[in-house]
Amino acid sequence: MKFELKDRDASGRIGKLYTPHGTITTPSLLPVINPNKIAVSPKEMKKQFDIEMVITNSYIISKHKGLKEKALDSGVHGLLDFNGPIMTDSGTFQSYIYGSINMEPLEIIKFQKEIGVDIGTILDVFGTPNQTKTEAEQGMKETIKRAKISVLYKGEMGIALPVQGSIYPELRFACAQQLSKLDADLFPIGGVVPLMENQRYTDLVKVILASKKGLDPGKPVHLFGAGHPLIFPLAVALGCDLFDSSAYIKYAQEDRLIFSNGTQHLKDLEELSCCCPICSSYHINELKKSEKIQRTKLIAEHNLYISMVEIKKIRNAIRVGKLWELVEQKASENPQLYNALSVLGKKEEQEYLEKHEPVYKKKAIFYTGPHTINRPQLYRMNQRLQQWYQLAHDTIIVFPESTKPYHVTYEQEITAIYRRNPNVDILINSSLGPVPIFLDEMYPFAQSEFPEFIDQATIKHNKQVFNHLTKGKKVLYWDGKKTLELLKQEKKGMTQLDMDIKRIQNVATMQFGRNTDKILFKGKKSLVKSKKTRKIRNVYCDDDHIVSMRASDGMFTLKLAGGIRLHAHVPFPRFRVVVQNDAVPFIKDGKSVFAKFVKGGDIQLRPYDECIIVDQQDQLLGVGRCLLTVDEMIAFSFGQAVKVREHISD
Amino acid sequence: MKFELKDRDASGRIGKLYTPHGTITTPSLLPVINPNKIAVSPKEMKKQFDIEMVITNSYIISKHKGLKEKALDSGVHGLLDFNGPIMTDSGTFQSYIYGSINMEPLEIIKFQKEIGVDIGTILDVFGTPNQTKTEAEQGMKETIKRAKISVLYKGEMGIALPVQGSIYPELRFACAQQLSKLDADLFPIGGVVPLMENQRYTDLVKVILASKKGLDPGKPVHLFGAGHPLIFPLAVALGCDLFDSSAYIKYAQEDRLIFSNGTQHLKDLEELSCCCPICSSYHINELKKSEKIQRTKLIAEHNLYISMVEIKKIRNAIRVGKLWELVEQKASENPQLYNALSVLGKKEEQEYLEKHEPVYKKKAIFYTGPHTINRPQLYRMNQRLQQWYQLAHDTIIVFPESTKPYHVTYEQEITAIYRRNPNVDILINSSLGPVPIFLDEMYPFAQSEFPEFIDQATIKHNKQVFNHLTKGKKVLYWDGKKTLELLKQEKKGMTQLDMDIKRIQNVATMQFGRNTDKILFKGKKSLVKSKKTRKIRNVYCDDDHIVSMRASDGMFTLKLAGGIRLHAHVPFPRFRVVVQNDAVPFIKDGKSVFAKFVKGGDIQLRPYDECIIVDQQDQLLGVGRCLLTVDEMIAFSFGQAVKVREHISD
Repeated sequence: MKFELKDRDASGRIGKLYTPHGTITTPSLLPVINPNKIAVSPKEMKKQFDIEMVITNSYIISKHKGLKEKALDSGVHGLLDFNGPIMTDSGTFQSYIYGSINMEPLEIIKFQKEIGVDIGTILDVFGTPNQTKTEAEQGMKETIKRAKISVLYKGEMGIALPVQGSIYPELRFACAQQLSKLDADLFPIGGVVPLMENQRYTDLVKVILASKKGLDPGKPVHLFGAGHPLIFPLAVALGCDLFDSSAYIKYAQEDRLIFSNGTQHLKDLEELSCCCPICSSYHINELKKSEKIQRTKLIAEHNLYISMVEIKKIRNAIRVGKLWELVEQKASENPQLYNALSVLGKKEEQEYLEKHEPVYKKKAIFYTGPHTINRPQLYRMNQRLQQWYQLAHDTIIVFPESTKPYHVTYEQEITAIYRRNPNVDILINSSLGPVPIFLDEMYPFAQSEFPEFIDQATIKHNKQVFNHLTKGKKVLYWDGKKTLELLKQEKKGMTQLDMDIKRIQNVATMQFGRNTDKILFKGKKSLVKSKKTRKIRNVYCDDDHIVSMRASDGMFTLKLAGGIRLHAHVPFPRFRVVVQNDAVPFIKDGKSVFAKFVKGGDIQLRPYDECIIVDQQDQLLGVGRCLLTVDEMIAFSFGQAVKVREHISD
Repeated sequence: MKFELKDRDASGRIGKLYTPHGTITTPSLLPVINPNKIAVSPKEMKKQFDIEMVITNSYIISKHKGLKEKALDSGVHGLLDFNGPIMTDSGTFQSYIYGSINMEPLEIIKFQKEIGVDIGTILDVFGTPNQTKTEAEQGMKETIKRAKISVLYKGEMGIALPVQGSIYPELRFACAQQLSKLDADLFPIGGVVPLMENQRYTDLVKVILASKKGLDPGKPVHLFGAGHPLIFPLAVALGCDLFDSSAYIKYAQEDRLIFSNGTQHLKDLEELSCCCPICSSYHINELKKSEKIQRTKLIAEHNLYISMVEIKKIRNAIRVGKLWELVEQKASENPQLYNALSVLGKKEEQEYLEKHEPVYKKKAIFYTGPHTINRPQLYRMNQRLQQWYQLAHDTIIVFPESTKPYHVTYEQEITAIYRRNPNVDILINSSLGPVPIFLDEMYPFAQSEFPEFIDQATIKHNKQVFNHLTKGKKVLYWDGKKTLELLKQEKKGMTQLDMDIKRIQNVATMQFGRNTDKILFKGKKSLVKSKKTRKIRNVYCDDDHIVSMRASDGMFTLKLAGGIRLHAHVPFPRFRVVVQNDAVPFIKDGKSVFAKFVKGGDIQLRPYDECIIVDQQDQLLGVGRCLLTVDEMIAFSFGQAVKVREHISD
């Protein structure tokens, strides 16, 4: 069973999961098929709803004579009349519901293997939210014990090892770590149905985060029993890849329709505010009057359409870097979910989430409310502003928020200031926080939309960042000529080139860290600028092409000459991705770095960071752009790790 | 042309507009039909998309020989091959685009009449946002002048008089007032396209509010040129009833797909996150590769599906009282829209919006973020708490937020307190603000979901309300026995009946005003309570059934005996709806009060408020529930005004 990361945003990802019965794209929703009563057949699901994989229950099949015989005879794929991938659950949920079941852990593994499921699940011990820590720990230990034996018998079958540990983050983390050492193909997060049923989303977030922190980042993660679209975006943003839905049919049986923001009972609706093929072909009164069996099927189909649209929305959001926006928008639809997001404001969680957060995105950051300031990318921005970037001078001139790009809006004022005195820094007091003028084209300073009216906590937060940046400095709020006159007239002002050099130095500091500007831009600098947009395009030092600046987000792409400088002057392992020596010929041949060849590297590298590629002797091989973090490069056995931009030839 | 209000929420409404070619339900979206090039025919629109009415341009028809002849020959309905209602615009927008057009105001009215349009539009003067106030005022005066002449020639045709006045609220208001004196059937708000194109939603909100304040509340209002779903919920919440969309086809021509939160270019999408019949039957690559003409039609259809779903969502939200939630959720999708909502936090706007806000809703209030506290229903709640309700005693005991209903959660504590000393008030310090214990089952105190984590401005606001309520009083934060011991042991504590009586008195004060409890509940009180829920059901005083309490929201419904008391002791016009004397027999016959019979009444009555119905001599006729405000009762000529609950028989 292979799993490959194809795209990412937040701590979420688009992946490909390769199974013996075909490949699925994650995040994915697996409808639960009741083998006793198939309302919508898996075949139909695939054709009509773009469903790629389904889940059924091996325990139920094994306990039903007719089903068992048919499954043993023609496999689970024959039983369900479906040739796509099939996952099975093991009876754990039934033992939670009924107290205990008559099934041995190895027996159910053997049975799942016999009926040919693609991914089978061990018989783990369902940890409920109301357990004491001791009870939860016992159950968790038993789960690990069973997992250890079960994986020995998995054979060719993919195997899912559920993370248990009730609501105790330390247990979830420990369980995840233990399970990650085993030969697993999928990690479900189990025991969360009671949390979701009671809208205990704060606990759910804590459970997912604790589990993810302990799990092998190279394996897909399944949120067991999550079938309502309300929770999908957040769960994906935290790193869940698979969901299963019995909600579509359970709700349908109760005449309840799923909508993106909640469910509604058919009888409470006067019209269908939906345009799925079901709602477009039936008038609500026809639906209300139709026979129970037909009505259930139609509503189940509506529910599947809506659920799949939500999954697709999430995938599209990941592709453009808008997943956090989607998460926060959903939170405005449910107060408990809104509450749960506050967990992400804790420093510990921000530090964890920042590690997987891409360094730039295709689309601008939109402010949605008080949660926005907690986004990992803004946490990173403010950390780097305070730790990497530093204001060079003792006098700071502050301009109010205005039209972007700020340096164009305030061109006259800036020119006047720097003609008079080059020894001042200029900040814009924006809704996003303080923006150093020479960073004003860089992501996310330029690529963000914050309204004028923002919440008090964000205002306060921005003030703190501002105060930290300007501590001990003289702050002048721009007041036209008056401010100018406060500045000493220096002999030599700044030229346009001086300002451009300031800009590249500032950007390097924010992107690569303190003093990297001195390493990268040593020597005689020359810049190529776009005639049309006046933006910096290429930076040469002593005739070496060091970096280029992307027009879309004002960040640098590293050229080989830049990589050589970083490699020469920054000690190992900073900026490095280390590949095993037998992969060297491929890289010298211009190929990408594949995850399976990566031996290690700089854990400070973030997704889409620029990096230098070295062999095991720290010999420079090339420069490129990380698609994965180094932890992920080590964990994944498939897929690209670094897109090589330039490489050293023999 | 008749217009009738059927349901309402915020300042928005569901209405029925009766035209010679059929009845439409508002809010409604009128697709713009280009008579030269019909991409999706109106007939198809009606069949496939539940489109009820379309709009086309009489100026364009009149200037095109072929179209003109056909229209004069077989009417505009023949021209468009559509037998539903058709509205036409007049060339105003063309004169804005091209500077001037060759058309006389009366000429276009005459032409529209001749081709048999259902609602024609006068040739008004488009006021642009960049006009000076003087320029805007000139245009507005010319519009009024033309309106005055045009209405004289409208004949059987419905006529639309657009409100102009650029971005100047005082001009918009004045224009709206002037036009409302004329014999109009519809009031478009004109000149707003440039605001929407530039996402100047703050200005748009101000323009809509200023116009609405001046407009006849009994007529439908059209937001001219608003075709993007993003703006629909807010526009409806402020009182707009009709929209027209050329966006569906314009965007389609540029390969742009409308989604509920914005538009996306086909080329930027990797999958279609939509399940409309188009997106369900075409793979995105088929769509990308299809011929331009076909692609445009398919995308236009998708756009219509999505736009109509948004309209239906709004109508469903109105039906359950969730329109503000929808407005705020939308605002989290667009920072400029988010910004615009801050206008609604101004006292002046809150006062205006509170007048149309229903006094209770079917569903609970959900907190969505910092805008929630500005909702008119919460403004009202806090106003009434501070002005109507008053704490009776000098000592206040405060409990922290907990599970609802609070008086059940804190039953032991409350019983202990009141057994010891009846002379204290109890407040819950909830996320919604301070909740007096005896109001804890009443809307919206019980029917609200506020998360623990709320924004700073709301916390501050709640603190202010708390401080105002408890000013000069002794505040004790509940600390178990310690708090109890601080209370003097009185001879006589409170019994359960005493507490129930406190509850009905408190609710009456919050619902009807200060001292109304003394009027309503004079005499020997007896209560009927539900055995199952222990909730108060009926209140009798001296054996008269005064009020009942609705289980769903803890508010009173007024019985005839209660009405008699209010009528006897509260001076005219408070609580009255005055009907003309010839309607008296209908009311005595048990019929509802229809708007056309209402002569006046108490302007303090809010939608769904309980009221007393009197004749022109202030003789009591009955009690009931207002569906309209008194201003609306006077303005509307059709539909119900008051649902009569009990009436006096001869």
